[in-house]
Amino acid sequence: MAQWCVGVDLGGTSIKFGLLDDGGRATETFQLPTPVEQGADAVVARMIAGARQAIERREIADEDVLAVGIGAPGPLDIDNGVVIAMPNISGMDGLPLRDSVAGAMGKPGFLANDANAAALGEYLCGAGRGTRDMVMLTLGTGVGSGIIIDGELFLGAHKIGGELGHMIVQPGGELCGCGQRGCLERHCSATYMAQHAHKQISEGGRESSLAAVLAEKGSLDARDINEARKAGDALAGEVWDRAAYYIGLACVNICRILDPQEVVLAGGMAKAGDDLLTPVREHFTRMNWALTDVNMEIVLATLGSDAGTIGAAGVAWQAMRHGRA
Amino acid sequence: MAQWCVGVDLGGTSIKFGLLDDGGRATETFQLPTPVEQGADAVVARMIAGARQAIERREIADEDVLAVGIGAPGPLDIDNGVVIAMPNISGMDGLPLRDSVAGAMGKPGFLANDANAAALGEYLCGAGRGTRDMVMLTLGTGVGSGIIIDGELFLGAHKIGGELGHMIVQPGGELCGCGQRGCLERHCSATYMAQHAHKQISEGGRESSLAAVLAEKGSLDARDINEARKAGDALAGEVWDRAAYYIGLACVNICRILDPQEVVLAGGMAKAGDDLLTPVREHFTRMNWALTDVNMEIVLATLGSDAGTIGAAGVAWQAMRHGRA
Repeated sequence: MAQWCVGVDLGGTSIKFGLLDDGGRATETFQLPTPVEQGADAVVARMIAGARQAIERREIADEDVLAVGIGAPGPLDIDNGVVIAMPNISGMDGLPLRDSVAGAMGKPGFLANDANAAALGEYLCGAGRGTRDMVMLTLGTGVGSGIIIDGELFLGAHKIGGELGHMIVQPGGELCGCGQRGCLERHCSATYMAQHAHKQISEGGRESSLAAVLAEKGSLDARDINEARKAGDALAGEVWDRAAYYIGLACVNICRILDPQEVVLAGGMAKAGDDLLTPVREHFTRMNWALTDVNMEIVLATLGSDAGTIGAAGVAWQAMRHGRA
Repeated sequence: MAQWCVGVDLGGTSIKFGLLDDGGRATETFQLPTPVEQGADAVVARMIAGARQAIERREIADEDVLAVGIGAPGPLDIDNGVVIAMPNISGMDGLPLRDSVAGAMGKPGFLANDANAAALGEYLCGAGRGTRDMVMLTLGTGVGSGIIIDGELFLGAHKIGGELGHMIVQPGGELCGCGQRGCLERHCSATYMAQHAHKQISEGGRESSLAAVLAEKGSLDARDINEARKAGDALAGEVWDRAAYYIGLACVNICRILDPQEVVLAGGMAKAGDDLLTPVREHFTRMNWALTDVNMEIVLATLGSDAGTIGAAGVAWQAMRHGRA
């Protein structure tokens, strides 16, 4: 009989659920809305209900469910399974999320940063299959990341490592919400591209089709910028290429420091597919050293929104195998 | 009875030797001049002779010597134990250095990058004792480095990782010998500080006591710059602080990505002691994020020139324990 871990991926809009068996096969992935307006208790109750639903759907005996893995946005106290701060859901700060969910299910529980979990998900069942060393960059409003070394999620001595979005790529650059200047996140995220375009239009007097989009929507996402770029808008082209430049530079640093087999690009920006991948690869190749052959591939994620829940279950599997329960 | 691995650290000026026992204790460290002018055969012969001498000095029975670890400047083919290029000793390019030395001694042999070996040495017997996760930066004419993760030397999937000296810290910055622009090595090494000072004096018309030193010696080392700085020379102060800034920035990135317990500073620049450590720590603290407490310490190396040979023996020990012989 197969054995299973349940994965629960808590996001601000939806909670995603899934199962991962002892052979690394994922199944029963689905999602429920996050009851943000009802507060922490309702959110925890829905996490438990969804996890039970996944098990029931598959008709798995209780003894064949080994553990529950939970992915959530940081900052988290991983060791104690506690949410440090989650500003968009009231009552979550300080909540023992791991024990609240896993305790109700009578199973060992494990908590992970959502970007870390997503990286492990892509490693186990997506773009990282067949590698042993992989890095994932989740490019959205911020830049999340996860590092896989020799098949295991890497966290660092104090479990605050693997934060590639806060690698400084531009000394004295843009101020980041983390307090640093010049973070990768501040120089390639959709948020930054929109701010940069806005500034060029309003202060720099640049003409751009993005002005109309900004006026209408009040903001820009990666898709708006890529669409304008493809329609020939010069400013959109510059902003897009600049973001790809910093992602390419980050990939050079990842290659020099971590030397993985693959860097996987995920998140909203990566939905642009080859429109992102091609310039990132070009910048990476052009900037990279000449001392050795470089065999690191840059590829697109394949699991989409299932990566986080599969990876959360994967975190539980890896912890159980290391006897951390 | 104790068991031992022999460490041999090949440098351009001297070859260093030492023994490391199964309890992690180092002994019998000494050095012999590198017979550079006599070519590769003489260098290999001296490596073998010195390794035998270390064993004889300690009166160790042959069966208690398990393996030989060799540290050498890169680039190296680690898996095959072969020197790819070593421009300052004729006949070394393509030489199977590992098997030439270890084969003559009838022992399993292991080859490592010298900066990697030095980092492992400091981890085992020096500034890194008591940690499990440590990074070392060897700040000399270039910047070598080594990463220790969970007590093991980290190399990456293609064994070209851990090259923190070639992390890009200044986009579009100074051209490095590796082909990249803006490498850490190019923005904090003694070589760069000297070039920068020279340029400021000759092209920028800056007055500095370094002009006289440059005229006399034709070059500057880290000590010259620090001495001038301490005597109140403004340009020397700027150059020194700029190097400390980039080292501090690199430490922020190391903390974000690898999250080790310690970064150890070694090499010629680190001989300045607190004159280097204090400004590096200040820049690190000032630039670092505010999201979590930061418990990473920046400290000075303690083993000096013995780190490489102890670490080379350590590489052999770790490989033997993993059954890689």
